[in-house]
Amino acid sequence: MTILRNEDALLNRVETVFSRQDAGTIRVGIGDDAALVAPRKGFETVLTCDWFLQGSHFLLDRHPPDAVGWKSLSRAASDIAGLGAVPRCFLLSIALPVERTGKWFDGFLAGLRRASRWLQCPLAGGDTTKSKDIAINITVVGEVPAGRAVLRSGAKPGDQLFVSGTLGEADLGLRYLLKRPGMARATNAALRKHLYPEARIALGQWLGKKRLATAMMDMSDGLSTDLPRLCAASGVGAWVHAEWLLRTSRTDSADGLQLALHGGDEYELLFAVKPRNVRRLGTAFQGLQLTHIGEITAEKKILLDVGGKLRKLESGGWDPFRKG
Amino acid sequence: MTILRNEDALLNRVETVFSRQDAGTIRVGIGDDAALVAPRKGFETVLTCDWFLQGSHFLLDRHPPDAVGWKSLSRAASDIAGLGAVPRCFLLSIALPVERTGKWFDGFLAGLRRASRWLQCPLAGGDTTKSKDIAINITVVGEVPAGRAVLRSGAKPGDQLFVSGTLGEADLGLRYLLKRPGMARATNAALRKHLYPEARIALGQWLGKKRLATAMMDMSDGLSTDLPRLCAASGVGAWVHAEWLLRTSRTDSADGLQLALHGGDEYELLFAVKPRNVRRLGTAFQGLQLTHIGEITAEKKILLDVGGKLRKLESGGWDPFRKG
Repeated sequence: MTILRNEDALLNRVETVFSRQDAGTIRVGIGDDAALVAPRKGFETVLTCDWFLQGSHFLLDRHPPDAVGWKSLSRAASDIAGLGAVPRCFLLSIALPVERTGKWFDGFLAGLRRASRWLQCPLAGGDTTKSKDIAINITVVGEVPAGRAVLRSGAKPGDQLFVSGTLGEADLGLRYLLKRPGMARATNAALRKHLYPEARIALGQWLGKKRLATAMMDMSDGLSTDLPRLCAASGVGAWVHAEWLLRTSRTDSADGLQLALHGGDEYELLFAVKPRNVRRLGTAFQGLQLTHIGEITAEKKILLDVGGKLRKLESGGWDPFRKG
Repeated sequence: MTILRNEDALLNRVETVFSRQDAGTIRVGIGDDAALVAPRKGFETVLTCDWFLQGSHFLLDRHPPDAVGWKSLSRAASDIAGLGAVPRCFLLSIALPVERTGKWFDGFLAGLRRASRWLQCPLAGGDTTKSKDIAINITVVGEVPAGRAVLRSGAKPGDQLFVSGTLGEADLGLRYLLKRPGMARATNAALRKHLYPEARIALGQWLGKKRLATAMMDMSDGLSTDLPRLCAASGVGAWVHAEWLLRTSRTDSADGLQLALHGGDEYELLFAVKPRNVRRLGTAFQGLQLTHIGEITAEKKILLDVGGKLRKLESGGWDPFRKG
């Protein structure tokens, strides 16, 4: 285990791990003042950045360093998927204590490298510095054919609401993680989804390309927090059918509905589809379940239909300022 | 003073402060999963990110919040200047404690907004979360005519070395700041340069456009740390003439040479110029002093000429891992 005592050595380590990556459109990567990327003709550039902080987003004694690496990039790339875009490269900013620049940093870089390969999203640059706790910030640069990004603001009353995959599973994984002592391992699907979430890039791209989604976003803070954001951007409301929503839940837990409504960290896509396109959509995409959960309404309320009774859906997802 | 207790309220505050900005090429800004920017034909995209951390890069009780806002963006934009590129938009990631979301955050946003206007670099998006100490990460996206970026790697033996502006002044400003109790104010040029540095965008763009610089970088860690980086990238060495270097120093301090050699946080440009172009360069650009400080050599050593005696120039600039 080598402790790296200066910034250039730390950058060299990063460079070595990413040295054999397919650089794609990156013309100049690590090693200059800034990275140079050639945008493709007819495409718009998509930009997002995401915090991943020790103590808030991961626990040093529970989350394996390679899961920290994987997840920090995956969740940032998920924002790119939310627009129907494709990631093209990323910047890594990491602040960490000297004693984490050895084994922990190697594990982190290995997970980051795996996610980078999986997403076909090479490292273009970044910044490293020292800090007491580990702080990670990832910027992902993506691209989408000009004018074809699926925004949050396009939903119209009558559009049908869908989500990809399972909801509440990652939150269940977090519960398992917190119950068991020591470093977590992906011993079941819930833990796997919590530790190594997969951004829904291919699905988002397909929904955009085929013009199937009228509005879309990735869900990071839970349906009950994210759906109001999509509705506010579109100037609409929505109702969600509890029974339908339960179909997205794989848990046999008694509170499956609560998990599906409020569970954060899912990185599934929430999207609206015109009624005439629902059949074209189908019920799965490349093995990934697509579940019809409700409808967009003109009345600007977010309602939950439980056994025929409508009640207001209260936001209960993850908000760092609310939980504090 | 309003304390903001949730993430959406914090984002709304940011949106309000930046609501009347000239959005330039930003098609979709804050409020969606990611920002959408239209790249211009014939240009390459330039990407950089930069940490600005409480305790490392600024002190809560000494640096006014508006200086934190100004400097966090300025120094990131300086990396863009280092390539001869122009900033186009930026992303703000800020993690802060709830008690800083009121007056402190307002001051921070005011300084950030001023820098954004000065740089013609609008806010495109970002991420906010809670943390014990304030952590800021800024991503700047710039553009440069394709193939015209000035890299660190283009210096050839015989090229003449230049720096812009004054060296050591910002470091002197930091000394003043640390000596005087309470919140700092820009009461002299040194403090002004430390608190409100100006990225050398116009100079960098001119040097690139006129093909005057063969290699270039912005200096953030001090000449003695940054010059070896430029030389390593170019596979060359250099000598620096102490007496010439002292012309960049405005201080009457006895250790003016030490400040000019090792002072960090300057955000001046260091660049190499072919001998035949030295006359075209001149001694100033738009009132900004350009000082000839030495020469690029084939021998891969960094030497300092003090009164005719050559000695090895030891790196003494700012490195967060070395100082710890």
